[in-house]
Amino acid sequence: MNNLFCIIMAGGVGSRFWPYSTNQCPKQFLDFFGTGRSLLQSTVERMEAVIPSENIYVVTNKSYREQIEQQCPQLAQDHILLEPMRRNTAPCIAYAVYKIKKRCEDAQIIVVPSDHLITNERVFLNIVREGMNFVSENDAILTLGIKPSRPETGYGYIQLGPGNTLTRKVKTFTEKPNKELAQVFVDSGEFFWNAGIFLFSIKTIVAAFQEHLPEIATKFEQLTPVFETPQESEKLNEVYATCQNISIDYGVMEKAQNVFVRMADFGWSDLGTWRSYYELAPKDKQQNAAIGGQTMLYESQKNIVVIPKDNIAVISGLEGYLVAQRGNTLLICPKDEESKLRQFVNDIAELPEGDKFL
Amino acid sequence: MNNLFCIIMAGGVGSRFWPYSTNQCPKQFLDFFGTGRSLLQSTVERMEAVIPSENIYVVTNKSYREQIEQQCPQLAQDHILLEPMRRNTAPCIAYAVYKIKKRCEDAQIIVVPSDHLITNERVFLNIVREGMNFVSENDAILTLGIKPSRPETGYGYIQLGPGNTLTRKVKTFTEKPNKELAQVFVDSGEFFWNAGIFLFSIKTIVAAFQEHLPEIATKFEQLTPVFETPQESEKLNEVYATCQNISIDYGVMEKAQNVFVRMADFGWSDLGTWRSYYELAPKDKQQNAAIGGQTMLYESQKNIVVIPKDNIAVISGLEGYLVAQRGNTLLICPKDEESKLRQFVNDIAELPEGDKFL
Repeated sequence: MNNLFCIIMAGGVGSRFWPYSTNQCPKQFLDFFGTGRSLLQSTVERMEAVIPSENIYVVTNKSYREQIEQQCPQLAQDHILLEPMRRNTAPCIAYAVYKIKKRCEDAQIIVVPSDHLITNERVFLNIVREGMNFVSENDAILTLGIKPSRPETGYGYIQLGPGNTLTRKVKTFTEKPNKELAQVFVDSGEFFWNAGIFLFSIKTIVAAFQEHLPEIATKFEQLTPVFETPQESEKLNEVYATCQNISIDYGVMEKAQNVFVRMADFGWSDLGTWRSYYELAPKDKQQNAAIGGQTMLYESQKNIVVIPKDNIAVISGLEGYLVAQRGNTLLICPKDEESKLRQFVNDIAELPEGDKFL
Repeated sequence: MNNLFCIIMAGGVGSRFWPYSTNQCPKQFLDFFGTGRSLLQSTVERMEAVIPSENIYVVTNKSYREQIEQQCPQLAQDHILLEPMRRNTAPCIAYAVYKIKKRCEDAQIIVVPSDHLITNERVFLNIVREGMNFVSENDAILTLGIKPSRPETGYGYIQLGPGNTLTRKVKTFTEKPNKELAQVFVDSGEFFWNAGIFLFSIKTIVAAFQEHLPEIATKFEQLTPVFETPQESEKLNEVYATCQNISIDYGVMEKAQNVFVRMADFGWSDLGTWRSYYELAPKDKQQNAAIGGQTMLYESQKNIVVIPKDNIAVISGLEGYLVAQRGNTLLICPKDEESKLRQFVNDIAELPEGDKFL
């Protein structure tokens, strides 16, 4: 049996792309680039080049089960792990890790987000293969560090330890620095973007949970006997309800002494914001990016227009706006004001029946 | 039997309000002001205060039959007169006039558009009652002239003849003057807007058709025997196909010597443009006018937003735009550029399957 496994994290709610993504249909389920496959489907396909389908697990919120079953029919139903509630990434990864441990004590595992973009798949896959070897031979947690192309303030940064190899020990993690600090990081050549991709062996990660998040480790060890039994879902509910809400970065990566980073450059974006989408999207001569239906632009520049597939938009005399329409919801705002999206979404939530627009 | 009749002209295609109005659903069928009734329904209700329902006729294109039957169930089916093709207002009015003539040789008739706004109904109805008396006692075609409130270049103007009564002979008709001329007209106090409302007796209008549009008169005289028979529709097809495409204004009003105008001021708009709508619509403190669903505006001024009833729009940082959404179509353009609407609609018509958006 192949002992390479993959955990795809697909529980995100994607409010930053509202109304294109909604609670009902977050970013990972959308065909962002008109390729005919969602970001999740692209992720699964990409991983299948290295990991056999039967070793791929998707962890998501229970409300997305049907969408995942529909989009990924090649995945066994019991490999779609359903979180009963949101508890950040540490419990989510622990759940998947202990599930895999019960099947294969000496697995090597890669954890990947379901909603990122990778444009150079060949380079990525070579690094994954190499990294899987690395974690099978070393008691190490391996992260991938992306060579930064700009002083992005929305990402986490990983500082390299000393040495001259492509894989080195991590010195520090820094979450979302301000603009000045980000510029210092980029200029130094010592800091890389944290892509949220982790590789480890079962032994290493279980030891790390036991050391740094012992409560979570104990809960899932105790839960292990009911895995694959009719009680699993009910018992998981109880465990999750009492789990600490904590990220794997804060709970494990920033504390463990055996965390390594592999420098990489494979055309990566976390697609975290409309701006990051805009930078990657194909644009017309006037620097407009349009997704979905037919958009007709007159004397308009630097806009992002997202409309449903069978729709038409006529836009005249508009510059630098985001126009996004989905279902019965329309958003028009300057595209450098997307940080206000959260306010809009909150204001809508307070309307009578506001939920139906989110 | 009551010999007061009404002809409501409801064949307009309303492309000037695209995409809020479309070929499939032009302006007269829309609830423009959120009153719970379309402009056509408001027109019928208004006329029913003076004219019995069974004496009201609607002339429209055959493609709108179902919408009229649905919106005006009180109208007898054979009072919805269906034009087989567009031939401007003279043939349309001739058809309705000869239909009424067959029923009532000494009818007095008022012709009204179906898609205008009248805000002071009481004043309007008093003028209609008085006008019906006037045309029953005089061999006269009576038009209503609206006291102009601005040098509007989109309207036709009627020049008063000499005298000091509220109803006078018409001296001239002038279609859509330029801005300078319109200003001279308004300043003179002698020129009134042509509201497109006409009153006449059967005898007077038939004589006018015979004198000024004898071909049309002859065609409908010959058609009269098949009215209310199974042949009507087929024969009407033939007659219409050969009819001159001419307006009642150009074909009759500007030529006849017995045209009178009644000065009036009852809060009238032809709702011919988004601008005219904007001037009348209720606006928020930031001078935004919104129709339809829920519109949430942030730092936005002087916009018109028209979205479907169950929709939501979030608009931020926008000033002076028209945002109109209907079905699968969205328009965003500066509201003083609405004259470009025709170009947009033409461009869309040239798209493969462009028709479905119009």
